[in-house]
Amino acid sequence: MKVIVQKYGGTSMGSVDRIHRVATRIKKWSDTDVKLVVVTSAMSGETNRLISLAKNFTADPDARSLDQVLASGEQVSSGLLTIMLKELGLDAISFCGWQVKIVTDSVFGKAKIKSIDPSFVRKELSTRNVVVITGFQGIDESSGAITTLGRGGSDTSAVALAYALKAEECLIYTDVDGVYTTDPRVEPNAKRLKTVTFEEMLEMSSLGSKVLQIRAVGFAGKFKVKTRVLSSFQDPNLSIADELRESTIVTHEEDEVMEEAVISGIAFNRDEARITVSGVSDTPGVAHKILGPIANANIDVDMIIQNSSRDGTTDFSFTVHKDELRDAEKVLLDEVPKSLGYGEICSDINICKVSVVGIGMRSNVGVASKMFEILSMEGINIKMISTSEIKISVVIDDKYMELAVRALHRAFNLDV
Amino acid sequence: MKVIVQKYGGTSMGSVDRIHRVATRIKKWSDTDVKLVVVTSAMSGETNRLISLAKNFTADPDARSLDQVLASGEQVSSGLLTIMLKELGLDAISFCGWQVKIVTDSVFGKAKIKSIDPSFVRKELSTRNVVVITGFQGIDESSGAITTLGRGGSDTSAVALAYALKAEECLIYTDVDGVYTTDPRVEPNAKRLKTVTFEEMLEMSSLGSKVLQIRAVGFAGKFKVKTRVLSSFQDPNLSIADELRESTIVTHEEDEVMEEAVISGIAFNRDEARITVSGVSDTPGVAHKILGPIANANIDVDMIIQNSSRDGTTDFSFTVHKDELRDAEKVLLDEVPKSLGYGEICSDINICKVSVVGIGMRSNVGVASKMFEILSMEGINIKMISTSEIKISVVIDDKYMELAVRALHRAFNLDV
Repeated sequence: MKVIVQKYGGTSMGSVDRIHRVATRIKKWSDTDVKLVVVTSAMSGETNRLISLAKNFTADPDARSLDQVLASGEQVSSGLLTIMLKELGLDAISFCGWQVKIVTDSVFGKAKIKSIDPSFVRKELSTRNVVVITGFQGIDESSGAITTLGRGGSDTSAVALAYALKAEECLIYTDVDGVYTTDPRVEPNAKRLKTVTFEEMLEMSSLGSKVLQIRAVGFAGKFKVKTRVLSSFQDPNLSIADELRESTIVTHEEDEVMEEAVISGIAFNRDEARITVSGVSDTPGVAHKILGPIANANIDVDMIIQNSSRDGTTDFSFTVHKDELRDAEKVLLDEVPKSLGYGEICSDINICKVSVVGIGMRSNVGVASKMFEILSMEGINIKMISTSEIKISVVIDDKYMELAVRALHRAFNLDV
Repeated sequence: MKVIVQKYGGTSMGSVDRIHRVATRIKKWSDTDVKLVVVTSAMSGETNRLISLAKNFTADPDARSLDQVLASGEQVSSGLLTIMLKELGLDAISFCGWQVKIVTDSVFGKAKIKSIDPSFVRKELSTRNVVVITGFQGIDESSGAITTLGRGGSDTSAVALAYALKAEECLIYTDVDGVYTTDPRVEPNAKRLKTVTFEEMLEMSSLGSKVLQIRAVGFAGKFKVKTRVLSSFQDPNLSIADELRESTIVTHEEDEVMEEAVISGIAFNRDEARITVSGVSDTPGVAHKILGPIANANIDVDMIIQNSSRDGTTDFSFTVHKDELRDAEKVLLDEVPKSLGYGEICSDINICKVSVVGIGMRSNVGVASKMFEILSMEGINIKMISTSEIKISVVIDDKYMELAVRALHRAFNLDV
């Protein structure tokens, strides 16, 4: 049994017409010899609508109840798609996450998938062509409650199902036709990459090239799930070969990377805010005392920077999602011991992170200095720097974001 | 453990403010020594919105998928209510029908409850004050699919839960404060009844006094669940005694009926259409051959009338819900054997059914003739007549509905 998993995002499911297009595409695929598992996001805007409804009652809705509310979005979209598939004559059936036993932990709003029993879906696929499954959600193993996986969680649902079902490939249909050297809306000369490694993709997506959710990429890389990003806005009646041509394969084989450029792309992210705890005593355990309470509150931290000591004190900075800035500040004020003797806690939301990413960077020490030189030539001040094996990130004033991205894109020859 | 079940209808849950009122009322109740099970309908308009969404794809959506879509309405409303209850400091939790094991048969869109295991909810109530449960839905015992109980099914959910949990009482909060002698919007002199028997209520609700769903009444009567109808629009801070004063108790004890009037109320229904199969041969099995296929298609039939034979043929009429008229006609044309030799099948949607209902009618032969006399004095032609132990129904032109209701209300002394 040859299984393909397809995932359709919120924009792809955003209207009656678009769901019709998705159904037409699925019909084309199901006319071949493959069995399809289709994972749906909620119709675009629906999750935000439901969050707003809940926030009418309180700024901090009960997480378990909120997950029950939010999970309804995919329940509706998957049901509607299946209605359309049946209308087209396909033998399709739809299930919620709890029905196909997508078991998660109990962290409501950010649950992690612990297991998927493939036998249920495999049994359904043995008698029909298409099984539609709600993305973004599962069932809590301990209490049987509905859980959601957090923003973009449907990508993770799709990759996890592809792994559990030993699918040939996981196709992520989105509103772009692949992974680009940078966001084409910022730099019109951006080019689509034919392939990208999971490592690069991990850096790209965590940095804000919002093509594929970071957890999904991590999962796909770890379990070697062949994943492909392609557009749901292509003509659904294109041949499958033509459809696949316009896509980016996320691969786990470095050998598959044809042309090893030094830099694969320029990523950016405007969703973060910076928090600085200044003048903390430079003694062992400081980082843990500051970040431990943040982690316990389930707030994700991205960059973490601690400068070298001066007068026995140091400044400690980190970035969090803007939506979680207030929570993070509260946690710090409530729980970080005064014994750290810090000066003050200040935050900055007018920041932007810009990163250059590339597998080829490993053996090229000149990339960082070239990046800093280009930014300096444009008169852009760097507020934070962070590096990894295959990326260099800087935090700058968000008003310089476009300028920085375009200058770097050109300087690293990504236009050609 | 003293358990009270409360059910809030769609209008009661229709906005953020109204959900806030419901939560305030629940808080008042939970401050006493009772444990509360709260059953919610979808926010008003939501079920219709979801049906419209589905009908965008086809006039006849796949029933299993549609149930998955529709069930989301109560999932959202129950979650929102619980968010508000938690915000008020109550120890509340919400569940979907499948989570509390409301097991149904497999008739999607019109499922019947087969069993509820009370142990799950009882266990939750042992540690907290309020358990919120989605109305209108359950889980199919054979396939584990989400099922819905049909229009007004939340009443049935509430009564069934009250029975399973051996609750003291089932309180149905709705947009009216009880059962009236007729609809006050049609006859301003209509009076609230202090008590009404299940038998009367059964006739009243099936006839269109849309206070309480007929299946719920049947269930409550059969299993002797004490049920009370009251308004969710009363000030939620009224004392519980004052709140209960403005209500109607539906009772299984005829003795509890204080003042045994001959007629308790005038009911009416504009949602039905009449189908007549004319000139069928008057031989054994005719009724079954006509209604068998209708029943197999799961179309509910209300009145059934067959006139006495003339020339060896007879006319066979019955009424169905207007929404199901087209389906019923199609079934008749496709499946009723030509051997019946019927003349034609015709239908009429401009009809209205008006009924007088009362336990006291049993021993009073004059009610029917008095009813016909009054209608005749108003110049209203009767198209069909049907009688039971405690009610007489007539079908008339729908344009005479108001005239008939008011004349009958006055003639049977219900104004005083």
